[in-house]
Amino acid sequence: MNAWHLVYEGWDPEAQPLREALCTLGNGCFATRGAGEEARAGGPHYPGTYLAGGYDRLKSRVKGRVIENEDLVNWPNWLCLTFRRPGGSWFRLEACEILEYLQALDIKRGILHRRVRFRERDGRVSRLLSRRIVHMGRPHIAAIEWTLTPENWSGPVEVRAALDGTVANAGVRRYADLANRHLNYLGGGRLDGETVYLKVETVQSRIVMAQAARTRAFGGGRRLDVPRKTVRRGAFVSEILEAACAKGRPLRVEKVVALYTSRDHAISEPLDAAAKAAARAEDFKTLERAHARAWKRLWHRCDMSLDGNGNAQLALRLNIFHILQTISTNTTDLDAGVPARGLHGEAYRGHIFWDELYIFPFLNLRIPKITRALLMYRNRRLDEARFAARKAGLKGALFPWQSSSDGREESQVLHLNPESGRWIPDNTHFQRHVNAAIAYNVWQYYEATENWEFLSFRGAVMILEIARFWASLSTFDKTRERYVIRGVVGPDEYHTAYPWSKSPGLDNNAYTNVMTVWVLCCALRMLDILPPDRRRELLEDMDLPKEELERWDDVSRRMFVPFHGDGIVSQFEGYEKLEEFDWRTYRKKYGVIQRLDRILEAEGDSTDCYKVGKQADVLMLFYLFSAEELKGLFERMGYAFLPDLIPKNVRYYSERTSHGSTLSRVVHAWVLARSDREDSWRFFKSALTSDLADIQGGTTPEGIHLGAMAGTTDIVQRCYMGIEMRDEVLWLHPCLPREISGIRLRVRYRGHWITLKATRHTLTVSLDKGWYRSARIGVRKRVYVFKQGQSRRFRLD
Amino acid sequence: MNAWHLVYEGWDPEAQPLREALCTLGNGCFATRGAGEEARAGGPHYPGTYLAGGYDRLKSRVKGRVIENEDLVNWPNWLCLTFRRPGGSWFRLEACEILEYLQALDIKRGILHRRVRFRERDGRVSRLLSRRIVHMGRPHIAAIEWTLTPENWSGPVEVRAALDGTVANAGVRRYADLANRHLNYLGGGRLDGETVYLKVETVQSRIVMAQAARTRAFGGGRRLDVPRKTVRRGAFVSEILEAACAKGRPLRVEKVVALYTSRDHAISEPLDAAAKAAARAEDFKTLERAHARAWKRLWHRCDMSLDGNGNAQLALRLNIFHILQTISTNTTDLDAGVPARGLHGEAYRGHIFWDELYIFPFLNLRIPKITRALLMYRNRRLDEARFAARKAGLKGALFPWQSSSDGREESQVLHLNPESGRWIPDNTHFQRHVNAAIAYNVWQYYEATENWEFLSFRGAVMILEIARFWASLSTFDKTRERYVIRGVVGPDEYHTAYPWSKSPGLDNNAYTNVMTVWVLCCALRMLDILPPDRRRELLEDMDLPKEELERWDDVSRRMFVPFHGDGIVSQFEGYEKLEEFDWRTYRKKYGVIQRLDRILEAEGDSTDCYKVGKQADVLMLFYLFSAEELKGLFERMGYAFLPDLIPKNVRYYSERTSHGSTLSRVVHAWVLARSDREDSWRFFKSALTSDLADIQGGTTPEGIHLGAMAGTTDIVQRCYMGIEMRDEVLWLHPCLPREISGIRLRVRYRGHWITLKATRHTLTVSLDKGWYRSARIGVRKRVYVFKQGQSRRFRLD
Repeated sequence: MNAWHLVYEGWDPEAQPLREALCTLGNGCFATRGAGEEARAGGPHYPGTYLAGGYDRLKSRVKGRVIENEDLVNWPNWLCLTFRRPGGSWFRLEACEILEYLQALDIKRGILHRRVRFRERDGRVSRLLSRRIVHMGRPHIAAIEWTLTPENWSGPVEVRAALDGTVANAGVRRYADLANRHLNYLGGGRLDGETVYLKVETVQSRIVMAQAARTRAFGGGRRLDVPRKTVRRGAFVSEILEAACAKGRPLRVEKVVALYTSRDHAISEPLDAAAKAAARAEDFKTLERAHARAWKRLWHRCDMSLDGNGNAQLALRLNIFHILQTISTNTTDLDAGVPARGLHGEAYRGHIFWDELYIFPFLNLRIPKITRALLMYRNRRLDEARFAARKAGLKGALFPWQSSSDGREESQVLHLNPESGRWIPDNTHFQRHVNAAIAYNVWQYYEATENWEFLSFRGAVMILEIARFWASLSTFDKTRERYVIRGVVGPDEYHTAYPWSKSPGLDNNAYTNVMTVWVLCCALRMLDILPPDRRRELLEDMDLPKEELERWDDVSRRMFVPFHGDGIVSQFEGYEKLEEFDWRTYRKKYGVIQRLDRILEAEGDSTDCYKVGKQADVLMLFYLFSAEELKGLFERMGYAFLPDLIPKNVRYYSERTSHGSTLSRVVHAWVLARSDREDSWRFFKSALTSDLADIQGGTTPEGIHLGAMAGTTDIVQRCYMGIEMRDEVLWLHPCLPREISGIRLRVRYRGHWITLKATRHTLTVSLDKGWYRSARIGVRKRVYVFKQGQSRRFRLD
Repeated sequence: MNAWHLVYEGWDPEAQPLREALCTLGNGCFATRGAGEEARAGGPHYPGTYLAGGYDRLKSRVKGRVIENEDLVNWPNWLCLTFRRPGGSWFRLEACEILEYLQALDIKRGILHRRVRFRERDGRVSRLLSRRIVHMGRPHIAAIEWTLTPENWSGPVEVRAALDGTVANAGVRRYADLANRHLNYLGGGRLDGETVYLKVETVQSRIVMAQAARTRAFGGGRRLDVPRKTVRRGAFVSEILEAACAKGRPLRVEKVVALYTSRDHAISEPLDAAAKAAARAEDFKTLERAHARAWKRLWHRCDMSLDGNGNAQLALRLNIFHILQTISTNTTDLDAGVPARGLHGEAYRGHIFWDELYIFPFLNLRIPKITRALLMYRNRRLDEARFAARKAGLKGALFPWQSSSDGREESQVLHLNPESGRWIPDNTHFQRHVNAAIAYNVWQYYEATENWEFLSFRGAVMILEIARFWASLSTFDKTRERYVIRGVVGPDEYHTAYPWSKSPGLDNNAYTNVMTVWVLCCALRMLDILPPDRRRELLEDMDLPKEELERWDDVSRRMFVPFHGDGIVSQFEGYEKLEEFDWRTYRKKYGVIQRLDRILEAEGDSTDCYKVGKQADVLMLFYLFSAEELKGLFERMGYAFLPDLIPKNVRYYSERTSHGSTLSRVVHAWVLARSDREDSWRFFKSALTSDLADIQGGTTPEGIHLGAMAGTTDIVQRCYMGIEMRDEVLWLHPCLPREISGIRLRVRYRGHWITLKATRHTLTVSLDKGWYRSARIGVRKRVYVFKQGQSRRFRLD
């Protein structure tokens, strides 16, 4: 194992789903993003439940990769490419004795290798090698190369290369009773002498997807002209090639698939486009070379090198690899959001949550046009968010907790507790705080890029509409003489209601209230710096009178933040009345207690009753803001911000968190980085391997945790390298953990590529040649103006 | 008439198609852009001919506006809203005596007003008022308000509000024999108590379009609850309302239509989206107010005020209005190009030609993100252009002369001469020069915006691939020791072959050869300024060795340019051998001889034989480049560029041009502006009113001439205001024609809004407040650095 290859040796059916999830290849575009199928589930078990949005997305991803769904779960995925002896049954690993098995993901080049040596029941021993890619430079192309070498036999084989439109979404066990077929068959068959096609549409959203698969066989270094036939069974279209195998002589097969959907640009019609692309595609080797070059381009921008820790290095690169598989320059021209579970599994049905908050910082500082495209995903759904706010009796824009194709709220109203088998009312859609995250993301994008045009138009409207929403949600409490926000849910999903109340939602979630203040300040400050003409237009378009802006200012100065005990920011008003939780007893009883909500519900109890958190909530504030910024916000509201506020709160909440969300570890690694470096490193390592180690015991095969993966990259850049973008300056304040001796990374800041190298003692900053403007970079309270090509070394002691 | 209203009084069936074309409303988005229907025409008359691309586009536009096609030709367009007495026949203007008729296009607000007073056969006199909008702020919404007032009668009426999926493309007479039905009916009927819907798909490209129409009736200031029925006849879906009319009491009807297609973003499914949008839409008055505000935003950026000439002012604004109707901020999120005839007619089938060259300068300096989006239309079709080059045995990218949905060449191979009734081989696709225009447009966009990211990625690849194409098309002529380009057609479409040759194409078209040199220089210079990392990547991706770049340099220094006579740049090699044309005889014989090609072909002769041009060709060079730039290019090639070269060539070719293209007048107005100001103004006025006066005798109803319209705006800014973007400086060199006493306009240059006011004696330059960077502005050979908010006045004498 080196820091660029994820290698598994040995055949392990138990671990296989996990391996498959981690080794899945995508290019962010080969999947048909944002399909948005809605399937209202009927049946006695869950009346009124609805599932929405992402199903089509996931489905089509699975289809996009041209695999049978069972493949993912049961045996290695050969992309619908298999073989048999004429008259026999199709090759299945389970039916063989596995003599050798090796699976290696080449992270650098985006290639998945598999090598299997096996003995069939009749004693025939063969080797099968495969390499496959989902082309990063040619977003509509995927390809597999497959080499079968008989070791002790000769004879005819049939090779089957198929396109499968019969796939079902069956990767998440607790969704098993829900509708899981989402494709209508539209047509399939032969296109030309070496190509078959399949055309399907999604059931509700009617997105058409067409694939063309070109299969070629090679032997002895030349292309074989073999007999073929096309067989279609329903939506399963196969091309079957007859080839003669000879002992020790490799039979090589190349299958190249082109996928287009009716949402793709620059096409006349999807099947027409797929057929053309498959016919024009080069051979596997040429495709592979261009594919590796596209990955090289990405790594040149996105790699982070960590010295002194090979395991951390590999895990970090795997995480970066997964970000770029899901969203890349290939997705910027699509109306795609970034799904919480990547494109790797079916959990959360492909929906878009607030994980952007963890993912954008990595992208902002490298390929900001991806962030811009993802912010446009939100921007296009602004009207729907405005409608949602109006419907809720509020003003401005209310983006949904779970978003999908058309931007309506897709959160389930019931969810299944697999521990108890019961369907529980789901109040997570009261997590209005996703709206603060969106505004925060817009502003961070601007800080990183100085993209005035985006800010003045798309960005400004989003920030203002969200500010307006928060202001309208804030009501004035006369007894306190402060503004309050009632009936919301914070990031911690263990608390969605008071134990003493029948209605959902909590009052004055501290994170939400402080974020509200930040959003309002951001909106007011932005209005100050926008060109006067544009400001006038915005105020006129939104019909925003001076009085309303004055109220925003007032809300931002008199927002209520609950405290209890000695300087503890209460997670929400009344938090102090909850009971302390008996961690020891439950740990003893259940072992793993990350999902305490399910455990307690099964016992007839509820996490709502206890001082226990699934994930960081108050602590999120320390993750998003520097101490200086937070001090400013608290003092603006008239609250003292004593120097020990942060460590005191970190200690208090760390002791009360079960880390039922992978995001929690990211935040804790961060907030402990300066105070408890050992614990911080422990959390970082754990977050880094959230999926590699499947730390939540089985959730990785349901889909990777993209927020946590990206969060670890953000710890490296914002926490260890100490990057902070503030007031048009790129501040650097490196602080390496003991376990790492050096960090090297490149960031794109306002048009410049800047190379940053830090050790525990020095920091080197080098501006690339290119744009002639200068960049302002701050080190140790001093701002330096860097010109292109300039480099400086700073001592950190 | 004032400078913001285009008013026609009196009913004139003859002029009506022209009026309708000019008063068509769009928002650039309500039409379904880029549908790309291909309809290979069969039949005995034109085997092998094919029509492609834009048909669906046009069709859907017409459908988008919910009008019956005959409406456009035969009578004023009421958007499928009409009435009758129960049992009678539907209202038709032709069947009435028209007592008053007024049609007014409010250019400022984008509202079309109509007022008709008429007497029906039975003596009933009524007034009908209508206002309609295609919403500029809500791109999926169009609405009409319609008020019927009986003057001398009372009684019941039936009002019919329909959606028509039976429309045909029948607006261009010479296409009459071609397939003209492009929609399959998918469904239609009632959605709710006041809304009907229609769902269709295009025949070949399978783009789904769904419309929902909500109709409400009002009387006495309140909404009427009237009996309704929904009637469907094939793809014609009507909602019929029964209302009681009373003498002198206005009956007001509002019809609001929402249109979505399967290519739209942020939707689940088109009909679902249309239904939602129609149900949520406000009343007409509220919609109209927001619509007018959206236009106000556009005019704030795009208006050009001309003092001292009301007619020119109105015509100029009408032209700007049409640009913004076709392409606006509503189109930036679509994969749309800019069709030569706008969205106003069916000629050229919606195809994209080189007219961008005339249209982008206006957009670059105001709303450059539109240009960026339009350049992305090309960028997305780069692969197809690469394929076309390979197919032609060349390297790089060969964009088609006529482009549509998937970027293949859509030019007809035969075209009809209506004068002779003959189908003639069409060689216009040899106009490779469109590729030079695309590279030029990329560079101009960069000059205007300083968008490094676009240039480094999307732009650079296009410029390099196009440069590579030109270099591969250039062959070395050993006898001359120079590079030559054979077998192309220049902008002048009267010359597509030598009269003495059977094969199409001409050698060494001067415009093409000089543009090739410009493209190669641009590519080499760009490689010099790109960041070294990115340059390396580009060269590697394109496999561009040093030797090839050296050849580019060599081609750019030793390109052949033909000359004849005393310093005349030959339009192409051998031009001097053509006969002089007998202009006087033909003018006498035919009167209008703009389309000499058709006249001569009908006589069995050909324009190929004569020194006669349809439009500017050599003179294009003086339009695109300043004398200094051109001198640089010629001297690089080793040709003297004497001071009298420009006036001499202008005179020579002006005398030999029939102006069969509206673009020709734009170029001539320009090149004569400093030498022959009277002729220049004559050409300008004529170009300005190309469509207002339908100067080509009937082509305007087939579609406006967007290139000429935009060209006139470019004359105002680049010629009269003297704007030139060069070497990172905005140069200003105003030179007003005698007929105009002052010009005021605003330009957006590298992030700044700059207000420019020029009279014959002074120039005032004011930088808006906003972006804090400075801008470099050159006046009279001196460069001034402007900071935000700064203003300066210069004397011009």
